[in-house]
Amino acid sequence: MLLSRSKVMEEVTGAQIIAEALKSQNVEYMFGIVGVPIIEVAMAAQVAGIKYVGMRNEQAACYAASAVGYLTGHPAVCLVVSGPGLIHALGGMANANMNCWFPSCCPPPPVSLASSQEIAKASRVLREAQRPLLIIGKGAAYGRAEKGIRELVEVMGLPFLPTPMGKGVLPDDHPSCVSAARSRSLLQADVVVLLGARLNWMLHFGFPPRFSPHVKVIQVDLCAEELSNNVRATVALLGDVRAVVGQLLQSFRSDPWRYPSDSAWWVTLREKMASNAQISKRLALRTTLPMNYYTVFQHMAELLPRDCIIVSEGANTMDIGRTMLHNHYPRHRLDAGTFGTMGVGLGFAVAAAVLERSQQTGRRVVCVEGDSAFGFSGMEVETMCRYKLPVIIIIINNNGIYSGVGPETWREMEKMGELTTVAPPVTLLPEARYEQVMCAFGGRGYLVRTVEELRSALQQSLADIASPSILNVLIDPASDRKQQEFPWLTRSSL
Amino acid sequence: MLLSRSKVMEEVTGAQIIAEALKSQNVEYMFGIVGVPIIEVAMAAQVAGIKYVGMRNEQAACYAASAVGYLTGHPAVCLVVSGPGLIHALGGMANANMNCWFPSCCPPPPVSLASSQEIAKASRVLREAQRPLLIIGKGAAYGRAEKGIRELVEVMGLPFLPTPMGKGVLPDDHPSCVSAARSRSLLQADVVVLLGARLNWMLHFGFPPRFSPHVKVIQVDLCAEELSNNVRATVALLGDVRAVVGQLLQSFRSDPWRYPSDSAWWVTLREKMASNAQISKRLALRTTLPMNYYTVFQHMAELLPRDCIIVSEGANTMDIGRTMLHNHYPRHRLDAGTFGTMGVGLGFAVAAAVLERSQQTGRRVVCVEGDSAFGFSGMEVETMCRYKLPVIIIIINNNGIYSGVGPETWREMEKMGELTTVAPPVTLLPEARYEQVMCAFGGRGYLVRTVEELRSALQQSLADIASPSILNVLIDPASDRKQQEFPWLTRSSL
Amino acid sequence: MLLSRSKVMEEVTGAQIIAEALKSQNVEYMFGIVGVPIIEVAMAAQVAGIKYVGMRNEQAACYAASAVGYLTGHPAVCLVVSGPGLIHALGGMANANMNCWFPSCCPPPPVSLASSQEIAKASRVLREAQRPLLIIGKGAAYGRAEKGIRELVEVMGLPFLPTPMGKGVLPDDHPSCVSAARSRSLLQADVVVLLGARLNWMLHFGFPPRFSPHVKVIQVDLCAEELSNNVRATVALLGDVRAVVGQLLQSFRSDPWRYPSDSAWWVTLREKMASNAQISKRLALRTTLPMNYYTVFQHMAELLPRDCIIVSEGANTMDIGRTMLHNHYPRHRLDAGTFGTMGVGLGFAVAAAVLERSQQTGRRVVCVEGDSAFGFSGMEVETMCRYKLPVIIIIINNNGIYSGVGPETWREMEKMGELTTVAPPVTLLPEARYEQVMCAFGGRGYLVRTVEELRSALQQSLADIASPSILNVLIDPASDRKQQEFPWLTRSSL
Amino acid sequence: MLLSRSKVMEEVTGAQIIAEALKSQNVEYMFGIVGVPIIEVAMAAQVAGIKYVGMRNEQAACYAASAVGYLTGHPAVCLVVSGPGLIHALGGMANANMNCWFPSCCPPPPVSLASSQEIAKASRVLREAQRPLLIIGKGAAYGRAEKGIRELVEVMGLPFLPTPMGKGVLPDDHPSCVSAARSRSLLQADVVVLLGARLNWMLHFGFPPRFSPHVKVIQVDLCAEELSNNVRATVALLGDVRAVVGQLLQSFRSDPWRYPSDSAWWVTLREKMASNAQISKRLALRTTLPMNYYTVFQHMAELLPRDCIIVSEGANTMDIGRTMLHNHYPRHRLDAGTFGTMGVGLGFAVAAAVLERSQQTGRRVVCVEGDSAFGFSGMEVETMCRYKLPVIIIIINNNGIYSGVGPETWREMEKMGELTTVAPPVTLLPEARYEQVMCAFGGRGYLVRTVEELRSALQQSLADIASPSILNVLIDPASDRKQQEFPWLTRSSL
Repeated sequence: MLLSRSKVMEEVTGAQIIAEALKSQNVEYMFGIVGVPIIEVAMAAQVAGIKYVGMRNEQAACYAASAVGYLTGHPAVCLVVSGPGLIHALGGMANANMNCWFPSCCPPPPVSLASSQEIAKASRVLREAQRPLLIIGKGAAYGRAEKGIRELVEVMGLPFLPTPMGKGVLPDDHPSCVSAARSRSLLQADVVVLLGARLNWMLHFGFPPRFSPHVKVIQVDLCAEELSNNVRATVALLGDVRAVVGQLLQSFRSDPWRYPSDSAWWVTLREKMASNAQISKRLALRTTLPMNYYTVFQHMAELLPRDCIIVSEGANTMDIGRTMLHNHYPRHRLDAGTFGTMGVGLGFAVAAAVLERSQQTGRRVVCVEGDSAFGFSGMEVETMCRYKLPVIIIIINNNGIYSGVGPETWREMEKMGELTTVAPPVTLLPEARYEQVMCAFGGRGYLVRTVEELRSALQQSLADIASPSILNVLIDPASDRKQQEFPWLTRSSL
Repeated sequence: MLLSRSKVMEEVTGAQIIAEALKSQNVEYMFGIVGVPIIEVAMAAQVAGIKYVGMRNEQAACYAASAVGYLTGHPAVCLVVSGPGLIHALGGMANANMNCWFPSCCPPPPVSLASSQEIAKASRVLREAQRPLLIIGKGAAYGRAEKGIRELVEVMGLPFLPTPMGKGVLPDDHPSCVSAARSRSLLQADVVVLLGARLNWMLHFGFPPRFSPHVKVIQVDLCAEELSNNVRATVALLGDVRAVVGQLLQSFRSDPWRYPSDSAWWVTLREKMASNAQISKRLALRTTLPMNYYTVFQHMAELLPRDCIIVSEGANTMDIGRTMLHNHYPRHRLDAGTFGTMGVGLGFAVAAAVLERSQQTGRRVVCVEGDSAFGFSGMEVETMCRYKLPVIIIIINNNGIYSGVGPETWREMEKMGELTTVAPPVTLLPEARYEQVMCAFGGRGYLVRTVEELRSALQQSLADIASPSILNVLIDPASDRKQQEFPWLTRSSL
Repeated sequence: MLLSRSKVMEEVTGAQIIAEALKSQNVEYMFGIVGVPIIEVAMAAQVAGIKYVGMRNEQAACYAASAVGYLTGHPAVCLVVSGPGLIHALGGMANANMNCWFPSCCPPPPVSLASSQEIAKASRVLREAQRPLLIIGKGAAYGRAEKGIRELVEVMGLPFLPTPMGKGVLPDDHPSCVSAARSRSLLQADVVVLLGARLNWMLHFGFPPRFSPHVKVIQVDLCAEELSNNVRATVALLGDVRAVVGQLLQSFRSDPWRYPSDSAWWVTLREKMASNAQISKRLALRTTLPMNYYTVFQHMAELLPRDCIIVSEGANTMDIGRTMLHNHYPRHRLDAGTFGTMGVGLGFAVAAAVLERSQQTGRRVVCVEGDSAFGFSGMEVETMCRYKLPVIIIIINNNGIYSGVGPETWREMEKMGELTTVAPPVTLLPEARYEQVMCAFGGRGYLVRTVEELRSALQQSLADIASPSILNVLIDPASDRKQQEFPWLTRSSL
Repeated sequence: MLLSRSKVMEEVTGAQIIAEALKSQNVEYMFGIVGVPIIEVAMAAQVAGIKYVGMRNEQAACYAASAVGYLTGHPAVCLVVSGPGLIHALGGMANANMNCWFPSCCPPPPVSLASSQEIAKASRVLREAQRPLLIIGKGAAYGRAEKGIRELVEVMGLPFLPTPMGKGVLPDDHPSCVSAARSRSLLQADVVVLLGARLNWMLHFGFPPRFSPHVKVIQVDLCAEELSNNVRATVALLGDVRAVVGQLLQSFRSDPWRYPSDSAWWVTLREKMASNAQISKRLALRTTLPMNYYTVFQHMAELLPRDCIIVSEGANTMDIGRTMLHNHYPRHRLDAGTFGTMGVGLGFAVAAAVLERSQQTGRRVVCVEGDSAFGFSGMEVETMCRYKLPVIIIIINNNGIYSGVGPETWREMEKMGELTTVAPPVTLLPEARYEQVMCAFGGRGYLVRTVEELRSALQQSLADIASPSILNVLIDPASDRKQQEFPWLTRSSL
């Protein structure tokens, strides 16, 4: 190997030229699977000072590269062989594109502002609002608009609702965060300010019955084509989110205004939040075994450090986890995104952990996975072990997709006949020992059935900064979310 | 679950219509990952009598469905959610297309024949050949042309060379099989008959220096556009391979001819085969540890049943395994194919095992994987365990792609600095315990370091017809293939 | 120019290499529009002995090139600049593809045959037919199957119906041609033999009510994917049309059979043909002015040489002309084809005329155009004049698309207000003097209002073998076709 | 027709819904070719109050629709049949897209501004410039930025250069316009301000040797992806051109600055402009016959009204005409654009004339065409005659593309052999009488050989406001442009 390297350095190869070109574009990370024609590129990249992470499937490699782009604002590279390698990587590229992480889309340097007239109009509409609501989207996180938005919330006194990846721009436990009254706030708001959020399927397209038919939308977006999508914007503010929020603040500074904290709207929202919190709490306090989602998340929330990076994918696991696991800092959450893509989690986690190690922040990466979701790219635990990335993977295992069956029911099905004929398509092997997959590569594995086991395993994992872990948390396969009016990502949302 | 089913049956749903339409097209197998909008389709398919196999990633599901098409001649269905699911499945679709497994390409019913003039011309060219060679391709296997080709070989006395997936159309240990003199036979043949084989990169495009510049090509193919690709065919026989071979036989029957078995060409080939066999034998008999490829394959070849289905993917593992592991029956081999796609193996194996169980043939499915290749879809072992598919996965583990390093070297590298900077891109975790991944789901796992362990583990696996196994065979990371003149699938071939 | 040429010859340029490569593929004709980067290619092509025809729009150039492919069986080249030139040429390429004129689709050398079993089955089904019908398609013309098909018709006594471009494979005035009873023959046939014809929209997809729901289809096609399209073939004969017809003939020769000419089916068809001929005749004999379609076509049919090449496009013009203007030889007709593409006529005519001049056949090219159709590529008359191609263009001018208005109505409309508001979208300028467009470039132009003017102008045009002509035949804008049950190309056909 | 309309109105048809939807989007104009399935849509559009213009080829229809979008800022509709009609229209769609005329790209309402820091930086860079140059592009015209740009030029004293379609944003005869020193100004400028202009092939990609390697670029563009294309922008001002120019002006107002009019740079530019004007003048004053380009354009320039709309396409015709025919108002010029698309002229002219009639401005549309360019869509003169659109088409006829031959040379070539073999590909029929094509449809046609004929014909055409005209201006086929250093659109530019 060392021989090969020196050989590469003796003459200028094509691989070297590619590597140097990438380096000159400030690429720091490369993720990939090497095959015959591209080994040399990976080696040349290392020589040029680019960190190389070898993954187990191009899907995961591409998801990892896109996560670096989102987290750092600088592109990373995904190296694949042509033909099938490229095709395997398409999922990642489509996901990055749909979520607007291709860096060419949004080069930070040229910042554009909204026009003064539109800013004035937005200010006017907000001042006249009876039931205003800020919706903070992924674009606000990517655009690093947190400082201005905090001022908007705290000085102007406005309630806010983060989208899944907008969580953490302001802390989820901020008193003005109305996530716990999500459905109500969407339904009754008369003025909605979209801050880098889009009215796609996750926001029910902005349509009744989830939104008021008379809602006025103030939309802040850097992409002209997105303005007035699905719902016609009352005020369309085309520009960089951070810069436009700055313009809005300036308009409020020159003519101060504050939304009254004792308004009927705030009273309604606070009441709804309290009653919803009550329900979650009741579920979380249940002590029957197997555990339910709420109990598990409650204890995780208690133990996880405030600054950890949460990666998540799955169906119920992601939906319920989103409401129970708070984010306190911007860009500390990565999930299945606009597409609801399964298979992204471990690649994202590898990327986040590699970044944290480089930056020596001491922040931990926690990957909250449904058991089905884990199966899409579970072999990447070898990558984590190989590079000693101390990712904590918590699999919320209900033996299936949405719901599975327990071991007894499964044994009865086996007796009923051929499983390809009788087993429900949503069922996976009951009580599969996913934690042993981690052990196979030298990481920590914990089988978790009780609250005590959960707390102990999580504490041990957090204490180990050199190895990844899997907590395989067996929950009741019949566990489901509490009744919601209009959830984020569910079958009823379309 | 049973409730859901009866509900589905009460009214005619869209899902039911899809399921019935597929059933009426004689679809017997469906592979997929279910998500929100398509659970109902999977359930309706089961109600309609279609076997449903739930996989862990759409890539594998699609590879599985395409394998059923190849093995049975009837299409199977891959069910995916829209968006990322479809994109994940593209690899499988592209692979199936490149390898001509889409059934719409080659519907069996309409059989076409070559014209009589061309048949006469082919007969004439063959009779005048000094150094003839039949190349038997995947098309001959798919076209079920084995009976006619055997007659061509045995009655006309012609040497033959199978392509990777053409192996088994005639047994690899047939005395007229010249695989052991592959490079020589290609290089010196003056007339080559392509029987469902194509002059793509695996056959060096038919170009010098691997082929004689004066070689005459007799090409049998059912796709007009393929005729004279890369090398102009001296005789182009457009038609169904089996039917055209029948026409050729008829022409030889009416005017009998036999290529002399004592020709200089046969003498050359037999000498070359003997000397190559000698070299392989010598490598296979080495007793030093860690084992090398040849030793491992030699013992596998001794123990595997003649009628087992061999699935294979990897770099050296597939290349060397192809020469050492004989096939004795047609369509008993599935490998990474024309694209050299990694990640196909476990999906193919699932499909083959599901088919064998349906047909109750008692044949075993053996999946020979490189360790890197296994990582692409290793989580599908849960699928095998769930459905109790007794696949035997043999991982030839050299700690990397092409070559890895041993545990000591790895520990030294860890000391040298950050692994993303110093570890060679081809390296995987040394001595990873892949067999434990199988144990995690209740299957059999064996760590294999010696010949004795190999034989014992393989015998136990073969004896168990209810569970899948992994044999994690640790070989010398520096093990490589013996020198070849022009190998099938190597970096030097382009 | 001569200077440029010698300069080109001094050194080997890229243009020269392209030209030589095309020449070595036996390309004889190149059509194009030259712009900056490709002048040199056109010149090099001429130096290499390829005939170059400079056209006025890439659309027409591409249609011309595809016509050469159809007429000769060898490809011609269309030379366009990149960007807009390529896009303009897409129409031609799509048209050629849809009509299966891309030479790569159908290379003449490799001829494939149908299997003996299927031939035997076809023979059996035909022998049992009560009401058989052969449909002769464009594929039979392109495949040069005329000799065999004539034997099938004359020895076996079967009625036949040509598709638009299948006209002339056998003469339209052949006693077994049942075009004059088209609707009836399709509706009541119990066995239909498709000879290079496809059940697309022009044949009503083979569906009721235009076809019997119980019709048996014997389909001869060289493209496997076309077999059983729309209607499941009772017998699918995959192979070269000419070769398969030969196989059918052989089966009838070895076991002779003849469909009785006094069958009820023949009686029905002959009666229907006679009554339809009567109606056309009556329309054709009308002497009122302006003339109607039938009168015009009747006199053209009387004067046109039997061996002329008829090119046609338009709506009613093409539909009615197809029934009135007989073809007597195969591949002597080019029309708007499967797509019903407008704008193809003049390009086709240029190509046909260039070919005729090369081959010195003395055959004339007659281009029968609707006035709207002429407008798509009317400027190509300059091309005809420039190259002295004696094409006779007969424009059947009804002042519009489907129907226009007369000059008085038009003047009234002008008074009613802005024409973009009041003029019907199907209306063109009344009595436009298209013949003067030809005069502008030195060709012959005739304005034709009466039978006498029509006959005189056509005779003069036929007598001039050095110049193109336009006959601008003014007909009654209200003229329409006679009532048909199910016409070939009409709005009712979808 | 009136019957059909009332029938359409009786029930709500799909056509009516389409028409009403378009109308509600403020669509005022529809261009198209009607065929079977879409006649009803055109009629319903008229009923809904949309003006319908029936064209002769979808190419021209689509170019016309895109021109309306450019001229008015509101979209027009192109109505085509599916299949070939759509393909014919692709040229227009691609052209509109490349030239950024799709309204969805650039919706006027949301206006974005550049950031204050970048504005300050731009101001600083400009103040320090030794040799500044404004380049005014099509984007400035489309963005209606003329008022602000005039202030930038007149108050700040900066020289400007318009791109082809940027001509007229400020008058070409403005004393600060340096078009007559184009090559010199590009080559020596040290700071270039791109105002809605892009460094594509028409601006030599901003590369040496046409630009200084040290040039600083201040780029104003509304599309983030365009910023720093080809040359890295020193200052990237992302935003609406008009708004950003306003920001720049404000920064100069608050801290006034003026570039000195007696700088060395202005002296250099004025000297070069004077010497170039001298050369053009000398060519224009030549009285030998046939005329040359410069003479023709000189007299046209004298007679054309200052406010006429100039449409132009061709090779030398467009290039030389661009320098000789001045524009005085913004959006009064339409030409072959970024693609250099031939075939756009007559469609654009139809659109412009329809608009002028609607708006009753009294402005004339003058279409300056090369003879080859005219051939792409010459049949659209029937459309002009039908709708009585008084377009003046001036064909600069040199018997070919770039250059043709005279009648005597042509006759000699005819004797030399087959013209497809001997005629140069750039040659068209000598002295073709294009003006008669106009006469064929009732418009005015003039054959022009002398200055007197040119002036007389142009004056008569301008006097007739009810009919279109063609002036077929025969020039010396050997006429060429004067030597230029680096022309806009020439073979040497790539």
